[in-house]
Amino acid sequence: MTDWLWDHGGEGFAQAYRVDEVLLDLQSPYQRIRVIRTPLFGRMLILDDAVQTSEADEFCYHEMLAHPPLFTHPHPRRVLIIGGGDGGLLEEVLKHSVERVVMVEIDRMVVDATLRHIPEIPGGAFDDPRAELRIEDGFAYVRNTPERFDVALVDSTDPQGPSVPLFGEAFYRDLHRVLGEDGILAVQSGSPLYQAELITQVRRNLRQHFPVVRTLLTYVPSYPGVLWTFTLASKRLDPAELSADEVDRRVAGFGLRYYTGAQHRAALNPPPFLKQVLES
Amino acid sequence: MTDWLWDHGGEGFAQAYRVDEVLLDLQSPYQRIRVIRTPLFGRMLILDDAVQTSEADEFCYHEMLAHPPLFTHPHPRRVLIIGGGDGGLLEEVLKHSVERVVMVEIDRMVVDATLRHIPEIPGGAFDDPRAELRIEDGFAYVRNTPERFDVALVDSTDPQGPSVPLFGEAFYRDLHRVLGEDGILAVQSGSPLYQAELITQVRRNLRQHFPVVRTLLTYVPSYPGVLWTFTLASKRLDPAELSADEVDRRVAGFGLRYYTGAQHRAALNPPPFLKQVLES
Repeated sequence: MTDWLWDHGGEGFAQAYRVDEVLLDLQSPYQRIRVIRTPLFGRMLILDDAVQTSEADEFCYHEMLAHPPLFTHPHPRRVLIIGGGDGGLLEEVLKHSVERVVMVEIDRMVVDATLRHIPEIPGGAFDDPRAELRIEDGFAYVRNTPERFDVALVDSTDPQGPSVPLFGEAFYRDLHRVLGEDGILAVQSGSPLYQAELITQVRRNLRQHFPVVRTLLTYVPSYPGVLWTFTLASKRLDPAELSADEVDRRVAGFGLRYYTGAQHRAALNPPPFLKQVLES
Repeated sequence: MTDWLWDHGGEGFAQAYRVDEVLLDLQSPYQRIRVIRTPLFGRMLILDDAVQTSEADEFCYHEMLAHPPLFTHPHPRRVLIIGGGDGGLLEEVLKHSVERVVMVEIDRMVVDATLRHIPEIPGGAFDDPRAELRIEDGFAYVRNTPERFDVALVDSTDPQGPSVPLFGEAFYRDLHRVLGEDGILAVQSGSPLYQAELITQVRRNLRQHFPVVRTLLTYVPSYPGVLWTFTLASKRLDPAELSADEVDRRVAGFGLRYYTGAQHRAALNPPPFLKQVLES
């Protein structure tokens, strides 16, 4: 019988992918890690039973988590990434003229799995001299570090297991502390179709520390339900004040496949039926 | 064992819905018709094995097929619908100050199934005195009718069985004939993720008869892969010339849940990775 991977999105709903080959299947101290090959998305990274990224559409997720905050900030020099073990987000950040990127990933085996089986996703990002990869707990790092950053990006799994504290108010308070005056934070905040409570919780927790909170609507074809959200929080700067023309001017030469001025505006202007969730 | 409905989107890819109740399951002369109840989308209409619409998201599909052409036309009075048996599209069309809508649906049992089990989708549309429902073959109707229309909308299943001719060049030629000088046609043209060949074929066939051809990108959460396209073709008018502000001004009072000026612009400005498919 043919094997299918089911990624469940909420009650009684799943996206399913035929598994043509299992390239890796192991248990790390934190999670089950698989790399599978599927017809529509090619090689996919699966943590526990959830799709994390695929070679076919990784840029949809990584561009929309990285570039809206990095372009909203006038001159991001120091960037912090929490999670993001596959390196796809790091690659996008390094397209900017940043000086230093610290990436804190708890599970070295995720980094190794990607480098071995889907090396196109990070490209050469881990070898960039501006990047420092730290294998440690992101929550503890943010609590204790003396470093300061312009932009922080949280590329976590959904809130279960080691990711739960990454959606809490205490973590956002600590992130506020490590960010400068123009600091911007962006976090993955789940599906608007079946994780409305998560989005509301993230927004509520962020608002306790950041005056500007904006949830962006975008799509990630390899995720169940495809529609996805990232939530930006900032001390001062507002992504809604960035015009489509300015985005298009500044992304020229980046070679992006998803993010443009039009996508920036679309992400901030959801259809009415989702406004209640996204502006809760 | 719990029953799930799988709607396959291309090779080795499906969206799956848990079936909590089967409200209807019968065979018409044209297709298997089911109405099922699912946790995330409520009641869903299934033709053969493909989701057609659901009570939870029917407006996503119907608003984006109806309103872009109807607002691009300066004063649509006579509208033709081919297919659309669930009546959701008819309901959207009747929100405009049209004089007459002819809807040609081949399968009366689809109309009856919806009216009996998901009457909220058509609402009172079939009772509107401006609407005429004809149960006959849409291809033959368009070939033979002496009537003329301002806007024609093709709300068909994917090209298999009775729908195959509805994607062909001969049908588009006949539609060109029944449309007036400002005539606009809009057709459902499939998924950009796994039906790229269909989109290309539709665009090529339309261009043989219409100088303006635009494929709109939108999303329908209950369809596999969620991202979906509608393709507009016109003798003269271009939806790209309709501004977001004008859309927002004209939709005021319509009570729409999906379509706004921002959605109109977003639909015409896809991310770069889809441009090749949508502008083929």
